[in-house]
Amino acid sequence: MTLLNDLTNLLGAQNVLTGDDIARYREDWTKLYPSNPCAVARPGTTEEVAETLRIAARHDVAVVPVAGLTGLTGGAQTNGGLMISVERLNQIRELNPAAQIAVVEAGVVLTRLHEAAEAHDLYFPLWFGARGSAMIGGVLATNAGGSNVLRYGSTRALCLGLEVVLADGRVLNLMSQLRKDNSGYDLRQLFIGSEGTLGIITAAVMKLVPRPLAYTTATLAVRSLPDALTVLNRLQMASGGAVEAFEYMSKTHMARLAEARPDIRQPFTPIHDVSILVELGTTSPRDILPNDQGERPIEHLMSSVLSDLLEEGIILDAEIAQNDAQRMAMWERRELNAEICFSLGPCVECDIALPLDRVSAFLDKAHVSLDLLGRDYRSIHVAHLGDGNVHFSVFPSDMDENVYEAILVAVEDVVSELGGTFSAEHGVGLMKLSSMSRRKEPVALEVMRAIKSAMDPMNRMNPGKVIPARN
Amino acid sequence: MTLLNDLTNLLGAQNVLTGDDIARYREDWTKLYPSNPCAVARPGTTEEVAETLRIAARHDVAVVPVAGLTGLTGGAQTNGGLMISVERLNQIRELNPAAQIAVVEAGVVLTRLHEAAEAHDLYFPLWFGARGSAMIGGVLATNAGGSNVLRYGSTRALCLGLEVVLADGRVLNLMSQLRKDNSGYDLRQLFIGSEGTLGIITAAVMKLVPRPLAYTTATLAVRSLPDALTVLNRLQMASGGAVEAFEYMSKTHMARLAEARPDIRQPFTPIHDVSILVELGTTSPRDILPNDQGERPIEHLMSSVLSDLLEEGIILDAEIAQNDAQRMAMWERRELNAEICFSLGPCVECDIALPLDRVSAFLDKAHVSLDLLGRDYRSIHVAHLGDGNVHFSVFPSDMDENVYEAILVAVEDVVSELGGTFSAEHGVGLMKLSSMSRRKEPVALEVMRAIKSAMDPMNRMNPGKVIPARN
Repeated sequence: MTLLNDLTNLLGAQNVLTGDDIARYREDWTKLYPSNPCAVARPGTTEEVAETLRIAARHDVAVVPVAGLTGLTGGAQTNGGLMISVERLNQIRELNPAAQIAVVEAGVVLTRLHEAAEAHDLYFPLWFGARGSAMIGGVLATNAGGSNVLRYGSTRALCLGLEVVLADGRVLNLMSQLRKDNSGYDLRQLFIGSEGTLGIITAAVMKLVPRPLAYTTATLAVRSLPDALTVLNRLQMASGGAVEAFEYMSKTHMARLAEARPDIRQPFTPIHDVSILVELGTTSPRDILPNDQGERPIEHLMSSVLSDLLEEGIILDAEIAQNDAQRMAMWERRELNAEICFSLGPCVECDIALPLDRVSAFLDKAHVSLDLLGRDYRSIHVAHLGDGNVHFSVFPSDMDENVYEAILVAVEDVVSELGGTFSAEHGVGLMKLSSMSRRKEPVALEVMRAIKSAMDPMNRMNPGKVIPARN
Repeated sequence: MTLLNDLTNLLGAQNVLTGDDIARYREDWTKLYPSNPCAVARPGTTEEVAETLRIAARHDVAVVPVAGLTGLTGGAQTNGGLMISVERLNQIRELNPAAQIAVVEAGVVLTRLHEAAEAHDLYFPLWFGARGSAMIGGVLATNAGGSNVLRYGSTRALCLGLEVVLADGRVLNLMSQLRKDNSGYDLRQLFIGSEGTLGIITAAVMKLVPRPLAYTTATLAVRSLPDALTVLNRLQMASGGAVEAFEYMSKTHMARLAEARPDIRQPFTPIHDVSILVELGTTSPRDILPNDQGERPIEHLMSSVLSDLLEEGIILDAEIAQNDAQRMAMWERRELNAEICFSLGPCVECDIALPLDRVSAFLDKAHVSLDLLGRDYRSIHVAHLGDGNVHFSVFPSDMDENVYEAILVAVEDVVSELGGTFSAEHGVGLMKLSSMSRRKEPVALEVMRAIKSAMDPMNRMNPGKVIPARN
């Protein structure tokens, strides 16, 4: 029996794709990591995933899990391996509003979970541009971040339970709904962020939170990043920690937006050095009870803090969204970053995190280092500033492999010097493998290798990702 | 060279204890796990810990890390092993108020960190009775919980970075101060809660939070646990999630308190079935600005929600602390649980967690099961009800090993049936080893064993703890 025969017997021909049928799995949106899988298997149950892995083991073929293909680091790339798509594991098995949890399968698209939670006045607080395609399995495998991490934490902080199929087909059932559990090692944590190298996540118990009763959202201009942090701290203090998102849009981002999308209204002209999108959310009924002036306290808080800061000269300009359409327009300006960068051609994409108060120093030093390379380039950046997470994209006028590495190394040198990380929220995949070799603590790499060998001795689970080959 | 010679050369005679000098390491407060270490080494730096482990490896002696000895599960017990006390690693290396982090060594006592944070209007939100003895290293090794988990999470949620010495003396430096970092497996998580079986934690970067500007604290009587959950939900909704602690004191606890400590004032007589200690905290200045009646909004919120609930008959009686002394008296009633139980003699101590809405069913069923054993017993329980974490203590009139196991199995049967865990916040140590054998998912045990072998192939790190021997 061939691999394909075995898989077809198990899953049916319609769920073992080859040839033209796998076109959409061959590339992600970046087109940087073309895949050539021997087939794409689409199991529909956890047991089918397990049996698929046993079949792969029997045929000694590498296995690459694939979810929404929105990670953008080549984490699901393969040459000749078997792709296992979790798209048919798409049930929301349970949504318990009283317990504020959802039991979801790996193929559930984020937006679907958002909608299901919203129907119960709950919120699943993982929010980023690709939410309409990203699936829970991929989100867990990469420990995805996004715009609400500041308030609610990364994916890791939102996961109570996990179901994982191991390399040899054993099913590890960690589907706890408990808030406390110290019965041995917390194995969930090992799989979250392991990018499919230790097993395939098939389902999870995710936390939901009360849906904010109201948001108030503003776009501001400030002179500098230190001033932006002052704004963040003042709003956090005044609101008792109600800042849900604090997004930095650089002058380079706003200028590119004006260039690529003249249809999008610019908040301020001319463009300021630092634009900020800030959003407060409240779950407290007191905050939405209109005062004598008919103003909701949460809105009053935003406007009074901002007018104080305007008077002090810390804020240069501000507009507060007056309705949901204006709020959405503010978010669109931020979330268009990927699209407007993409159209500029080949780039070095750096997804880095720094201590909050060093983002400004990073940007200054990175530009000095890039200038020293003596080549023409353009750079554009935005940041989840409340987490110190900068998306720094460098577009050299002439790109080749040497230029790519030279830019990457130059940026990473600055990141390392400032105590930051070269991978904040997208993971490693293939894209950051060379960075792992250069920058990761050697003992940490050794421990990762030891764990990988213990869990997947034949190196069959997404081989070649996350952990660089030994030199 | 003998082991003791090597250690003395490294650490000096005053830091290699034997004979009478090790009396205080021989027993914890329960006296259930007497130790007989070959020596107690007290390294003063991370490098000395590393060298101590290399010496232990050379002499092929087991190593048992010891911190504050407040875990109470026998996690630091040894017969013949080398105890490594982290007590001299007691520096707060850095406290950065702007970044809201503290860099602390493993031997720092919790209370010291509380005080250091408080000096900057910050709070380290890990709070339990043993805070005056427990050390950061032990707290991390057991992923300790306590009374503020409801709001801030367990130790795991509060740790940004970690420094660990591995079995062979390699130092794993994960001392990140970043809020986002997806550069490979999150190895921190593996060591947190591993109870010294994978390495010795020597330092950590811990999150601090803004210190609440005010607390408002109340003791309530309600008829039943479902009614208590109604109170919790109503307070959470009204306050926008400001409940810092929600502690259940059973009638059995309150009765024992009256019996053992007649000097402590009882809030309500006669004692009700369910007494609750609830605390709201606020970091929002709006909540402490007195209104026209001179009342602070946070206090008004507590009193108005409670009086509504009184009117609805959900609350039977309530008192709100009028000052800090009254608040402390309320906490004392709860925290005396360990002391007043201890004096009752041998007991089966169950540290369990359940889905919130099943705590009531657990208590009913557990008592039926215990009655069916046909033996005299007394039971006392309290709970971190907001986390579903019950401390359920059973005092049989005649204790022996068989009685102990029979009670434990009876309680655990009910816990398992209701989807709970036999170990919520104290860890496994020796005490819960038999439970691990009986109850832990077999595949999870296999994975734990594989990781343990990969990290500590000679099984030298706290051997015999957490992971039960194969049958």
